[in-house]
Amino acid sequence: MGGIQFEAHVFKAPAGYRAVGLACGIKESGAKDLALIVSDREASAAGVFTTNRVHAAPVRLNRAHLKSGTARAIIVNSGNANACTGEPGEQDAALTAQELGKSLSLPAEDVLVNSTGVIGVPLPMDTLLKGAQDAVRRLGETGWSDAAEAIMTTDTRPKTASATFEVGGTTVTISGMAKGAGMIAPNMATMLGFIVTDAALPPSELQSQLSRSVKTSFNCITVDGDMSTNDTVLALANGASGIEHLSGADLDTFSAALDQVCTGLARQIARDGEGATKLIKIHVRGAPDEAAARTVGLSVANSNLVKTAIFGRDPNWGRILCAAGYAGVDFDPDRTTVSIVNMPIYASGRGVPFDHDAAVEALGAEEIPIDIDLGSGDGEATIYTCDLTYDYVRINAEYTT
Amino acid sequence: MGGIQFEAHVFKAPAGYRAVGLACGIKESGAKDLALIVSDREASAAGVFTTNRVHAAPVRLNRAHLKSGTARAIIVNSGNANACTGEPGEQDAALTAQELGKSLSLPAEDVLVNSTGVIGVPLPMDTLLKGAQDAVRRLGETGWSDAAEAIMTTDTRPKTASATFEVGGTTVTISGMAKGAGMIAPNMATMLGFIVTDAALPPSELQSQLSRSVKTSFNCITVDGDMSTNDTVLALANGASGIEHLSGADLDTFSAALDQVCTGLARQIARDGEGATKLIKIHVRGAPDEAAARTVGLSVANSNLVKTAIFGRDPNWGRILCAAGYAGVDFDPDRTTVSIVNMPIYASGRGVPFDHDAAVEALGAEEIPIDIDLGSGDGEATIYTCDLTYDYVRINAEYTT
Repeated sequence: MGGIQFEAHVFKAPAGYRAVGLACGIKESGAKDLALIVSDREASAAGVFTTNRVHAAPVRLNRAHLKSGTARAIIVNSGNANACTGEPGEQDAALTAQELGKSLSLPAEDVLVNSTGVIGVPLPMDTLLKGAQDAVRRLGETGWSDAAEAIMTTDTRPKTASATFEVGGTTVTISGMAKGAGMIAPNMATMLGFIVTDAALPPSELQSQLSRSVKTSFNCITVDGDMSTNDTVLALANGASGIEHLSGADLDTFSAALDQVCTGLARQIARDGEGATKLIKIHVRGAPDEAAARTVGLSVANSNLVKTAIFGRDPNWGRILCAAGYAGVDFDPDRTTVSIVNMPIYASGRGVPFDHDAAVEALGAEEIPIDIDLGSGDGEATIYTCDLTYDYVRINAEYTT
Repeated sequence: MGGIQFEAHVFKAPAGYRAVGLACGIKESGAKDLALIVSDREASAAGVFTTNRVHAAPVRLNRAHLKSGTARAIIVNSGNANACTGEPGEQDAALTAQELGKSLSLPAEDVLVNSTGVIGVPLPMDTLLKGAQDAVRRLGETGWSDAAEAIMTTDTRPKTASATFEVGGTTVTISGMAKGAGMIAPNMATMLGFIVTDAALPPSELQSQLSRSVKTSFNCITVDGDMSTNDTVLALANGASGIEHLSGADLDTFSAALDQVCTGLARQIARDGEGATKLIKIHVRGAPDEAAARTVGLSVANSNLVKTAIFGRDPNWGRILCAAGYAGVDFDPDRTTVSIVNMPIYASGRGVPFDHDAAVEALGAEEIPIDIDLGSGDGEATIYTCDLTYDYVRINAEYTT
């Protein structure tokens, strides 16, 4: 497994797709609010969705449209989540797929529909459908950065990542874009991720690859612990690279490249958390198993006390250890060690002496590693989150519906 | 069941106890930091403790000392949690019980030891033991308000509650004091509660009463979702009222009075959450069962997005519904209703029209009711929390260890 070229903040166009991003008028600000991605041939399609009991109309629609295992178009509007909109919301999502399908000469089932923004407000369908027609006309091979921008809500920057690798002299590309910055002001719900590749994979293989990769990437980030009604990650694989079938070592390379793209996007989401000044990378090892490691890592990542301490540059092992302790995982605090910014601060059941000034200095960095070894097994996991700041409170308290 | 006189913010001294609170020098500020409560006769004793895997030395000691089912003295120091202090910390807790026992002519096993404050710093034992001797000399029947003050850490006010009822013309008193304001700046761990009554109950009855009452009071509050290493509620029942044995209707009255005291203290803790400006009372009904109702209520109560919305006076049903949705409880959003400040804002799968200005006005109150009916059963629960404010971030980010 080797030879993966990975780049964050870049979207390399895979073969056989076109994209566009534009402002159709859903956002009052006039910012871009409609993205469209189309494969020029039938593509395997896979999706992973929110487990929230309350989910939006487009989530239900996509689940149904993915049953065939294939799709050709992904449409995304920002500014309105089409969530908690009742039966009319379901109809709006269906109509979007239908009308866009007509414009693209595709069956509605080949269209996947995504919405993010305010909850509980009906979609402005005239605006949206007119925008969709416009989008079809303006589809192109260089529309990716506009598309990445058009899916943003409270995000401060677009999020993209690309990986390429060679199979017998031919380049295979996996690229992704994502949005999400908290679960989110005000009712600006949602993490969305869209992965497109010109590799060829059968639908079931693509789904299992995506599910696995999401587990260690998008499911390992948290901004405020809130899971939205619309969270969605979709993947298309159209085979336009010319490589017919990936197997063996090549499939392993694909897996690794997909993980890099998903993790690269997930890191960008965590770093762009509402009000965040720092990315916090929590690595847990020595857990009874991987699930336990993730549980402990998420418990620490969701602790407001840990997140405010990092904001305040406080190397506070007490809060870290305490949050690990209430995760519900069995471990022995006396065999646990904790390091922060690569300085050991806790071992053998108590704090260890460390250079406090140097730690405070190091906590000024933009990425803060916290390493926890529970000394109780082989399970490990890496979780990304951000600090909790005055701006988080401002963004979420001052913007009223 | 009737005739309970309940008062919050009041501590009526039950018969047969003495108390004291004083400054012994653990807190650098010179504030009171040592409390002692002593029963003049053998008392039934019960306790409920943190389930955090990381727990402090005094928690282990109290568990051992409660095995006999009786105790006579409760000592509490604030300013130092004696948590994550290794084997020396265990010895310090044991020595405190031993030395205080000597001064009071009691076996060490009759002494319950409690600490709250900074984690990971050895107890200043000379200061503490000198303070304990001082406390024994100054014990009195009017020392309760000093004691309630001496157990505070980041609390802005002491927390007390009392209930009395008559049994055959004789007054029985249950009084309690508590501290806790978050899990808490910086490393100021802990919720502590101490309940004393002059009723007579066998130890096993007292333990089951306390366990039940804690479940619907102290276990139904959350400030930031963090559970400390030292959380402890202790109860003593010494029978000094003269009422030998409570049973039947009288025992029911005792239960109700105990619930009022515990809930009264729990509400005060939630309201005094770090940086809080409001108490939020979340009532969930229509859940499959009581545990499910509590799970949904705690999910809403721990949502930073809900807590910041309330701070910002935003009647944001989307965030409330969303937090209910990811609690992991099975319910139908289309049969769910949500009210805030007694105004219905969500029903039948979507928002209902409401007077927005009136809601914003009503959200200016100090206590904010949120009512959620899941329409899926008979389970109900009430959870208390507070809003999330700039001051929470300030308190927890700016105070470094």
